Amino acid sequence: MVEDRSPKPIHGKAAVCRAAGEPLTIEDIVVDPPKAHEIRIRVTCTSLCHTDVTFWKAKGGTWHFQEYQDTKRIRCDHCGSCTSEHSNLCDSVPFIIGPGMRRDGTTRFWDAQGSPLHDLLAVSSFSEYTVVDVNQVVKLDPAVPPKLACLLSCGAGTGVGAAWRPAKVEPGSAVAVFGLGSVGLAVVQGAKMCGASKIIGVDLNPDKEEVGRSFGVTDFVNPSQLDNRSVIEVIVEMTGGGVDYSFECIGVPSVMTDAFRCTKMGKGKTVVLGLGRDSDQVCLPSLELLFGRCVMGSLFGGIKPKTDIPILAKKCMDKELQLDALVTHELGLQEINTAFDLLLQGKCLRCIIRMDKDK
Amino acid sequence: MVEDRSPKPIHGKAAVCRAAGEPLTIEDIVVDPPKAHEIRIRVTCTSLCHTDVTFWKAKGGTWHFQEYQDTKRIRCDHCGSCTSEHSNLCDSVPFIIGPGMRRDGTTRFWDAQGSPLHDLLAVSSFSEYTVVDVNQVVKLDPAVPPKLACLLSCGAGTGVGAAWRPAKVEPGSAVAVFGLGSVGLAVVQGAKMCGASKIIGVDLNPDKEEVGRSFGVTDFVNPSQLDNRSVIEVIVEMTGGGVDYSFECIGVPSVMTDAFRCTKMGKGKTVVLGLGRDSDQVCLPSLELLFGRCVMGSLFGGIKPKTDIPILAKKCMDKELQLDALVTHELGLQEINTAFDLLLQGKCLRCIIRMDKDK
Ligand SMILES: [Zn+2]
Ligand SMILES: [Zn+2]
Ligand SMILES: [Zn+2]
Ligand SMILES: [Zn+2]
Repeated sequence: MVEDRSPKPIHGKAAVCRAAGEPLTIEDIVVDPPKAHEIRIRVTCTSLCHTDVTFWKAKGGTWHFQEYQDTKRIRCDHCGSCTSEHSNLCDSVPFIIGPGMRRDGTTRFWDAQGSPLHDLLAVSSFSEYTVVDVNQVVKLDPAVPPKLACLLSCGAGTGVGAAWRPAKVEPGSAVAVFGLGSVGLAVVQGAKMCGASKIIGVDLNPDKEEVGRSFGVTDFVNPSQLDNRSVIEVIVEMTGGGVDYSFECIGVPSVMTDAFRCTKMGKGKTVVLGLGRDSDQVCLPSLELLFGRCVMGSLFGGIKPKTDIPILAKKCMDKELQLDALVTHELGLQEINTAFDLLLQGKCLRCIIRMDKDK
Repeated sequence: MVEDRSPKPIHGKAAVCRAAGEPLTIEDIVVDPPKAHEIRIRVTCTSLCHTDVTFWKAKGGTWHFQEYQDTKRIRCDHCGSCTSEHSNLCDSVPFIIGPGMRRDGTTRFWDAQGSPLHDLLAVSSFSEYTVVDVNQVVKLDPAVPPKLACLLSCGAGTGVGAAWRPAKVEPGSAVAVFGLGSVGLAVVQGAKMCGASKIIGVDLNPDKEEVGRSFGVTDFVNPSQLDNRSVIEVIVEMTGGGVDYSFECIGVPSVMTDAFRCTKMGKGKTVVLGLGRDSDQVCLPSLELLFGRCVMGSLFGGIKPKTDIPILAKKCMDKELQLDALVTHELGLQEINTAFDLLLQGKCLRCIIRMDKDK
């Protein structure tokens, strides 16, 4: 008799969102075996971020974006975007906001009653087991601590990446970072890693000065304590004409405009990282743009995960990049609603969810 | 007796704007000798462009920008901006909108009654003689025809430069150019020179299709003839996801937004070249920016004149770049108001003013 070695559905716990904005429920779910070009993974450690909160709050149908044709290629690296140094979005296996695996749009998750469960951005990780596309998996040196790895694949990768890839911060330059949450602090570390000599942190919360300085901020500006001067005036004066790079890590359109306006004429670059509301517009005075400024956005800090995350992990191991202090809390999967609360109340930088913590 | 060889004031004709928007008057004026770090030049040929029209129409006081400290350095090349590949604005001898020589703010022009005449952006060229800062003079191979040289220092340099320098158009890429006036056509030539394989010209004037194709446009879109489809939809469809680069050469905020929205997610770059009104805002949907797009502006196409204009002149001589067809009219200084009319009525591409033409 031949042993059946085909992969079987697997049982595990997962945090399920049953209604937008309501506490997640910890359920026993079934995770299908991977289909072609997919991998089933046991999750040991994951990180919670504002992207999770945004989608958790969103009612279905709010997030509609252009959908691409499914081309079902085995794996990419050779499409126009993958081969370009300027893009981290693949044309063949595109990033789609909305549930469903990348190649066929179906789910691999089922609840105890056998009803399908949606995934989130095809990378659901609040589950003991998950299935992802091969294009989305990065193999790391086993010496990299999982706690660090799960930061790099989340907001910390976004922040460091933004300074390093799209902005290409140059040694000796001046940088302003608007919003010193975990993404902003990661930008600070990224700018420091790139050799910036002046890193101005901007935040309304005075407590952020100390934490900012511990990450590499050299100057702190609190826009609420400027005696009728604008944050733009203050930064332009501090830098003798404006910063070389600014980063918006909050997601507020008026802050995006401020970030743009405090950059240097002739060369200033602004990178927008904050996710605003669906209908938000960022407005820029067109003459100020004409004077040689640039505004850019990027998904996941513009990094190409397969090649860039291992580089960043190495820099962390070598202490060129210090992200450990971003982890302020570690909780088990059962406590995930506490993690959401900490994030919503601004009481944590990064809260890590450890799957083995309850056991 | 020692001969006095110090430079003297010189007499010549110039076109003078006595009231905003009124015809220029041809007057006999006196041009002072150059002061330190200045050069007095005999003008043989100059080009008229929309920048001239903009300032001709502007009432005094409309154009106020941040003014820099005068540092009076001999000549630059070593300030932060001059040494950066990303800027073409000098920190030491800054670009200032408003009259006056760059280093001391005074004028070198006097009318027949001895009253001072303002210069325009410190490069007045509608005059038989002018005085400019050494930082603003480019020495060219005498083999370069003056007619070509005066295109490169005006809108043609801006257009070609924008494709070549800030956008860095890559071989095989897809480009959209909004507005096929002389700057737009120069962008088309610049994109072709950089090896773009698809160059989409966008203009409301159907006559622009033919002239566009003669400069290198491969596809033409007339937004008024799209049967309820938007120019964005059409361009995204034509290119399978959007262009790699778009250029706005008109100066209309809504067109800037269109130009942005028709670029490819993950890597699209938009360069704004059109000069709008003082108070114009360009508004971008922030989520679309976040999907890895970039918007930039540049003065004079981001080129560094001293090094880049000789390179572009050589490319013209070698027929890698074809700008001659931009010159549709040549007039004498006495006919300069006709040149303004031709430009205002959209009846010319570039009209060259030749100082020797009336003689
Ligand atoms: Zn690809
Ligand atoms: Zn995340
Ligand atoms: Zn300089
Ligand atoms: Zn001009």
